[in-house]
Amino acid sequence: MHQHFPHLIDLDNYPVSTWNSIINLAIDIKRNQHIYVGACNGRIMATLFYEPSTRTQMSFQSAMLRLGGGIIGFDNPATSSVAKGESIKDTTKIASSYSDIVVMRHFIEGSVKAAALTADCPVVNAGDGGHLHPTQTLTDLLTLRAEKGALSGLTVGFCGDLKNGRTVHSLLKALSHYENNKFVLISTDELKVPTYIKDRITAYGKEYIEVNSLEEAIPQLDVLYMTRIQRERFGSPEEYEKQKNVFCLDKRKMKAAKKDMIVLHPLPRVDEIALDVDDDPRALYFKQANYGMYVRMSLILSILNEDIQTQPLLVGENIPEIKCHNPKCITASEPSLPHSFRNNNGILECEFCDERILTEQCRFI
Amino acid sequence: MHQHFPHLIDLDNYPVSTWNSIINLAIDIKRNQHIYVGACNGRIMATLFYEPSTRTQMSFQSAMLRLGGGIIGFDNPATSSVAKGESIKDTTKIASSYSDIVVMRHFIEGSVKAAALTADCPVVNAGDGGHLHPTQTLTDLLTLRAEKGALSGLTVGFCGDLKNGRTVHSLLKALSHYENNKFVLISTDELKVPTYIKDRITAYGKEYIEVNSLEEAIPQLDVLYMTRIQRERFGSPEEYEKQKNVFCLDKRKMKAAKKDMIVLHPLPRVDEIALDVDDDPRALYFKQANYGMYVRMSLILSILNEDIQTQPLLVGENIPEIKCHNPKCITASEPSLPHSFRNNNGILECEFCDERILTEQCRFI
Amino acid sequence: MHQHFPHLIDLDNYPVSTWNSIINLAIDIKRNQHIYVGACNGRIMATLFYEPSTRTQMSFQSAMLRLGGGIIGFDNPATSSVAKGESIKDTTKIASSYSDIVVMRHFIEGSVKAAALTADCPVVNAGDGGHLHPTQTLTDLLTLRAEKGALSGLTVGFCGDLKNGRTVHSLLKALSHYENNKFVLISTDELKVPTYIKDRITAYGKEYIEVNSLEEAIPQLDVLYMTRIQRERFGSPEEYEKQKNVFCLDKRKMKAAKKDMIVLHPLPRVDEIALDVDDDPRALYFKQANYGMYVRMSLILSILNEDIQTQPLLVGENIPEIKCHNPKCITASEPSLPHSFRNNNGILECEFCDERILTEQCRFI
Repeated sequence: MHQHFPHLIDLDNYPVSTWNSIINLAIDIKRNQHIYVGACNGRIMATLFYEPSTRTQMSFQSAMLRLGGGIIGFDNPATSSVAKGESIKDTTKIASSYSDIVVMRHFIEGSVKAAALTADCPVVNAGDGGHLHPTQTLTDLLTLRAEKGALSGLTVGFCGDLKNGRTVHSLLKALSHYENNKFVLISTDELKVPTYIKDRITAYGKEYIEVNSLEEAIPQLDVLYMTRIQRERFGSPEEYEKQKNVFCLDKRKMKAAKKDMIVLHPLPRVDEIALDVDDDPRALYFKQANYGMYVRMSLILSILNEDIQTQPLLVGENIPEIKCHNPKCITASEPSLPHSFRNNNGILECEFCDERILTEQCRFI
Repeated sequence: MHQHFPHLIDLDNYPVSTWNSIINLAIDIKRNQHIYVGACNGRIMATLFYEPSTRTQMSFQSAMLRLGGGIIGFDNPATSSVAKGESIKDTTKIASSYSDIVVMRHFIEGSVKAAALTADCPVVNAGDGGHLHPTQTLTDLLTLRAEKGALSGLTVGFCGDLKNGRTVHSLLKALSHYENNKFVLISTDELKVPTYIKDRITAYGKEYIEVNSLEEAIPQLDVLYMTRIQRERFGSPEEYEKQKNVFCLDKRKMKAAKKDMIVLHPLPRVDEIALDVDDDPRALYFKQANYGMYVRMSLILSILNEDIQTQPLLVGENIPEIKCHNPKCITASEPSLPHSFRNNNGILECEFCDERILTEQCRFI
Repeated sequence: MHQHFPHLIDLDNYPVSTWNSIINLAIDIKRNQHIYVGACNGRIMATLFYEPSTRTQMSFQSAMLRLGGGIIGFDNPATSSVAKGESIKDTTKIASSYSDIVVMRHFIEGSVKAAALTADCPVVNAGDGGHLHPTQTLTDLLTLRAEKGALSGLTVGFCGDLKNGRTVHSLLKALSHYENNKFVLISTDELKVPTYIKDRITAYGKEYIEVNSLEEAIPQLDVLYMTRIQRERFGSPEEYEKQKNVFCLDKRKMKAAKKDMIVLHPLPRVDEIALDVDDDPRALYFKQANYGMYVRMSLILSILNEDIQTQPLLVGENIPEIKCHNPKCITASEPSLPHSFRNNNGILECEFCDERILTEQCRFI
C-alpha cells in the first residue's frame, strides 16, 4: 500500500550527510546557475497550499521555474474542490498523479505525511500546522554555511517566542548535530524553549544558556536569529508594549554586536526588527529568504534525480486501540489512518505529529 | 460574425470517428510521452474558471505544461474583473486574444457556447452548469478503452443519482453509439435516468434495465460507474442514511463482483465508496482521473494542430419572438444573444442549453 | 541605498524617444513573433497584484510566457502573507529577489515607486491607485501608431468621465508631445478635464476644445476614446439615466463618424458602448487590448535586455518637516519613506503621488 518515494516530511528522517549534500548542491546552483537551467524540463510540481503562505509558495515556484519545470496547484482552498468536501487523501492522490513532485502546506499536524502515504510521487512538507517546516530549516542551514563558512563553532542567539516557534526548535535540533555550537536563548520566562528540545541539545553534547536581555546577550553572538513575538502570547497589551522594547532589535542594540555578527529572521517580521536595521550590512534576513530559493532548487533536483535515499514513512507499530492525544493531529480528523507509534523507551510517539504518550497512561484509555 | 475555430462545446457536434481519434492519440501520448514533450512550445492556454474545479483545472494545466505550453487565467471570479461587472463576452473575447486555446467553466448553461461565438481562438467547455462536461466523457471513454480493451460489448452499471448527473447522461449517450453495450441503471425510484436519455439508448438499439439494488446488480457487471448521491436529494436525513447503505460500495459488495470488473467514479466522492475499496486493484477511479490528463493532452494537441474539423456553433434558426424557457440558460442573462433553436420534429431545442419547447406551446407565449 | 534598475513607474521619467523605441519594438514583435520566442527563457516575472485586475495581469502573463519566461505571484492579497501584516517593502523585497522583473499593482498612490526603492530587480507599475498606469498609455500609443500610421496630426475625442480618469490624463499628456494633435474633450460640466492637464496641453502648443455632446463632436474625429462613466459620479440615478444617452456610443451615433475613425476604450466597459457597436469594423477596443500584450512583450524585453536607460527614482529634496497632503499617498501609510519633493517654481510636488503643495502653505504646517 505504501508508495516508495523520497519524500521530505521531516529532516530527522535523513542523516546529516543528506542535509549537507542538499546544502552543498544549493551552493553550487547559486554559483553556477546557468548549468542548472532546464535541469527539470518537462517536469511538473504541484503546490497544494491549504493555508496561504505567499513567500514559501513563491520560493518553491521560482525554484521550479528556474530549473525549467512547470507548476500547477492552488493557494486558496475556498475556491477549490476541498470546499466540496473532498478528503486530503483524494485531492493529493489525484494531484500527485498529474505531477512529478508535490509541495504541500496544511494547517493540520501530520497531514503532509498522511498525504505522502498514498501519493503517486514524492511529497515535500512545506509546513504542517505548528509541527514541521523542514525547508525553512534547510534555508537557515544554507544561510549559515554560506555566510559564516561553516555550520560548527558558532555562538547562535535565538530571540523572541522560543516556546511556540517551530522554526527555532528545528534549527536548534539541527545545529546540535554539528560540532562546537553554543546557544544563547533570549526570551521572557513564559516563552522559553521547551524542555524536550533542551534535553536534545544536551544529549548531543552542546551547551546553552537562557537569558532575558537581548542587549546583554548580543556582544557575544556570531548569529542572532530573531523571531516574531505574537501580541496574543502576552498577558496584556501593556505587558506586550513593555516587553517589546526588550526583545526588539534596533540600530542602537546593533552597535554592541560584533562586526561580523549576522541577523536572521524566518519572516514575516512585524516590529521585532526596526526598519533602520535593514540598511545594516549585517542584516541578512532578506538574503536568507533568497537562499531559500536556492535550497529548494537543490531539494527539488535531488528528489527528482533520486539522489536522496527513500526512507519508509512509518517505522513503528500500528496499535489500533491507542489514539494520539493531540486534537490537532491528522489522525483525529482522518479515521482511516493507522494508529502508528514509535516506542521510545516506554514513551509512545505518534508517527504523524510526534505527540508523546506514556505507555502507562495508555493502559487507562 | 461567427469565428470559425474547432471549439469543443458538446461531443455531439462531432462524429464518433473524431472521439475515437482523440482517444487513440491519448493512448499513444500515454505510451510515448517523450515524443510529445514540447509539442505545444510557445502556445498559451487560458483557463477561465468562473466556478472552482481544482481537479479539472489542474488536469488541463498539467496537460498543457506537459506539452510545453504556458498557462494564464483565473479560478476565482471574485478577484477578477468579473467583479467589476464585465460581461462574459468581453472577458472571454480579450482572454482569447491573448491565448491559443481557451478552457472555460461557468455555472450558467450554454455560457461556454455563447463565449465561443465571439472568441478569437478555439474554446473548450470544461463544464457549463449542469449541462455538459465533454472532457469528462472523453476521460471515461479513454479509461474504458484502455482498461477493458474496447468500447463495445460491455455491461455497464451506473449507480447513484442517475436523474441529475450530467456525467452519467453524457456517458450513456456516448456508449450507445458503440456496439453491444448493455446498461444496468441502479438507483432509487426518485433518482432514475430521465426518459429522453432512455429513449436515446433505445433509438441506438441498445438495452437497459433499471434496478434498485447495487448488491443484486453487481455480479453481472463489467464496469461499475459510481456517482455521488447528494444528501439534499433525499426527503430526509433518515431517508439518506437508509438509502446510503444500499447505494454505497464497500469491500463486502466488491466480493460479489467479477474479478475483472472495474470501478469508476467522476470524483469528488464523499462516502458512496468506502475507503477500504481504494486498495482493491479493481478500484480505478484514481487512475481514471489520471487518464483525464492524457485525454486533455490529446484534445489540446488535436485542436491546436487543427486535426479536428471545425463545426458551426449554431445550425438552427434565430426566432427572436421565442425565448428559451430555462431560467438557467445563458440567453436569460445575456439579452444580445440570438434566440437560436433546432427544429426537431416539431420540438424546438435551444441551441445554448438544449432545453426543449413544443412548438405548439410557443404560439401562446 | 537606492538600487539602480530600469524601473517603469511613470512614463514621464523617460524621454519620448524611449516611448517610441518601445512602440517600434512592439510593432516588430507583432509582425515577427517567431523571432522573439524564447527571448526570455529562464527569466522569471513576479506579478504582485494587491488589487485584482484580470485583464492587466493576463496581459503581462501572456506577454512573458510568449517570450519564454516563467511567472510567480499573487492576485489575491487576502490569501497571501499580506494578510499576516507584512509590509509592502518586505513582500516586494523578497519577491524581487526571486525574480528578474516585478510587475506590481496596488491601490495606494506612489506605492509602486516606494517598492522600487528597495527592490532587487526592475519594477513595473501596473497601476497605483488612481495615480498612474503607464502600460495602458503605452498600449494606447501603440494602437494609435499601428492603426492610424502615426502619433501626430490626429484629432482625438475623449468622452466620458474626464475628471477622474487617469487613463485619459496620461494619454492627453503623452499625445501633447507629438506634433499637430488636437483634442476634443466631451463631458458634462462636472466631469471636465482638470486645469493642470489642460495647462500642459497648452504648454506643449496643442489645442483642445471642450464640448458636451458626443453626437455633435463625432464627425470631426480621427479617434474616439471612450471611458466608463461611473454611476456614482452623478447626482442621482435619474441624472445618470439622462446623461447616459448623451455620452454613450451606439450604432446610430457611429453613422455620423468618419469611415476611418477608430473607437478605443481602456476596458472594462459597462454600458457606455452599446453591444451593437462591437461588429462595426471601426470598433477597435478589443484589438487595443491585444496590442497591450505586444507592448508589454516589448517593455519586458527592453527592460531585461537593459535597452532602457536607468533613471533615478527620486530627484528632489527630502524635507522631513513637510508631509504630503494626499491621504491616499503611500507616505501617509509607510512612515519610514523620505518626504521627497520636486520644487517646481515654488510648488512642491510629492515624488510619490505628484500631489502639489504651495511652499507658502508649508510654512504654516
